[in-house]
Amino acid sequence: MLQQALVAGIDIGGTNVALGLVNKQGDIVWKDSFPTKQFDDFSLLVSHAAGKIEVANRSIGTDHLLGCGIGAPNGNFYSGCIEYAPNLLWKGIIPVAKLFNEALQQPCVVTNDANAAAMGEKLYGAAKPFNDFIIITLGTGLGSGLYVHGQLVYGHDGFAGELGHTIIEVNGRACGCGRRGCLETYCSASGIVRTYQELVPSSSLQAQQIYQLASEGNEQALKAFTITGEKLGLALANAVAYTSPEAIILFGGLVQAGNLLLQPTQEHFNKNLHNLYRGKVKLLTSTLKESDAAILGAASLIWQKETL
Amino acid sequence: MLQQALVAGIDIGGTNVALGLVNKQGDIVWKDSFPTKQFDDFSLLVSHAAGKIEVANRSIGTDHLLGCGIGAPNGNFYSGCIEYAPNLLWKGIIPVAKLFNEALQQPCVVTNDANAAAMGEKLYGAAKPFNDFIIITLGTGLGSGLYVHGQLVYGHDGFAGELGHTIIEVNGRACGCGRRGCLETYCSASGIVRTYQELVPSSSLQAQQIYQLASEGNEQALKAFTITGEKLGLALANAVAYTSPEAIILFGGLVQAGNLLLQPTQEHFNKNLHNLYRGKVKLLTSTLKESDAAILGAASLIWQKETL
Repeated sequence: MLQQALVAGIDIGGTNVALGLVNKQGDIVWKDSFPTKQFDDFSLLVSHAAGKIEVANRSIGTDHLLGCGIGAPNGNFYSGCIEYAPNLLWKGIIPVAKLFNEALQQPCVVTNDANAAAMGEKLYGAAKPFNDFIIITLGTGLGSGLYVHGQLVYGHDGFAGELGHTIIEVNGRACGCGRRGCLETYCSASGIVRTYQELVPSSSLQAQQIYQLASEGNEQALKAFTITGEKLGLALANAVAYTSPEAIILFGGLVQAGNLLLQPTQEHFNKNLHNLYRGKVKLLTSTLKESDAAILGAASLIWQKETL
Repeated sequence: MLQQALVAGIDIGGTNVALGLVNKQGDIVWKDSFPTKQFDDFSLLVSHAAGKIEVANRSIGTDHLLGCGIGAPNGNFYSGCIEYAPNLLWKGIIPVAKLFNEALQQPCVVTNDANAAAMGEKLYGAAKPFNDFIIITLGTGLGSGLYVHGQLVYGHDGFAGELGHTIIEVNGRACGCGRRGCLETYCSASGIVRTYQELVPSSSLQAQQIYQLASEGNEQALKAFTITGEKLGLALANAVAYTSPEAIILFGGLVQAGNLLLQPTQEHFNKNLHNLYRGKVKLLTSTLKESDAAILGAASLIWQKETL
């Protein structure tokens, strides 16, 4: 039997850990997931994930695992650590790459979840044709990854691309990062929940339910999406003035709302874009299946190294 | 006599054109300037500048001119043109590199004035030690240039680094670009004039006079600087979340105000910086003489090509 080289991709989210084995063509040949919060101790998560990967690897019949890429909130490519992630259980600095390397005995590389998504889009998704693009992940929070001249931007310390933590409103909404007015407190699943609560103070609806209401034509729910798109469109127009990308790619759960979100976002993006950039910047959505993109992105950390 | 290779550097500003001859060490061996607005026709400016360069070149006794770098508002590195510069006399698209090439019979390269300043700082100034930095030019407007991983960011179309045209206030001050609320309408020499006018509606003072008043302890003038620093500090803290630079370097006329501007800027930069970046990002001022930096920066467009 021909041995197929595989890479493990792991996406550590606040709620779930998704993991898979990926071949060079970007096919996920095996995948699984488990809840994140059952592990008070991060090293228990590592042995659980590593165990699953080893079993899968054996059952597929390949022993040629090239390495493991891990995407996580506040994951730092340079240090291999998760550093002070506000939305995770584990506080301080967690040596993720080191722990997975010990468990799997293979090269392990870490980056933040949005950077992993950007690499996944570049290798396998909507960003393939572009050297300069920005990916925006709209999940519980707002993450971002920047490509400049064909390269992912890490910045001097590995923490580039935190657009979710640009302050768009002085003394605005309280953010998990300890400051106020961050973009992600408005433009994210949790942001739209807060926007809707401002419109309907008694509400305890979650993003999915607000989407449902909006789909049925509910005025306040529609307004919550319009407000979100208005702020996101402006933020994206501002982002263009930094790196002049050819495309911005939207990704993540909130994007499933489709035109409810995309139409006002595109409208306010167009309205606020400097005329130097008008008509030049595509606003696209991810072409990867959401559950796969995080795994593909994490795995591409290793595949990209292999192809350099 | 030993022939010294020289490069011409030209900075086309809204008010003055500065030009010089620069050797590889970054010494300006000759410089001159003339007012911009006397030339309704851009080709007359080109022949005037080229004539001065040729005379200087002959009088220095070198015939080894390697090329000419030109910095200009809305200068596009890729196209070699000034494109739709709101603060210049000439409208539309001006083929600057082509016209200078015809006049000088040497390779001519164009970029925007802030990118040229960034390259000058990287080759000869305060940015020498840094691979990831942002330069902010505070003149009549606010320009910027971004270095990522040791390379100047041009973006897909040559127009990266227009932070002066990020909208910081919805429905804010009218900007020359046709939109409202752009950063440069607050944080620039013209911005501080408008801020002071909001405090003292009868004022017709220019930035230099507001500085003079503030130096003498005038309350409203001091307040104008504080407000400017407050908005600039926040904008710079937001900028860090994009490319995670090691330093931000402030440059241009307004920086001459020293601590009147720098102290509130630093204070609000610190206050608004995400804790991931705290204590890691230096806020510096240019170490180049202002009249020289633009020439050096423009010349470095050619010197950088020579050293690649």
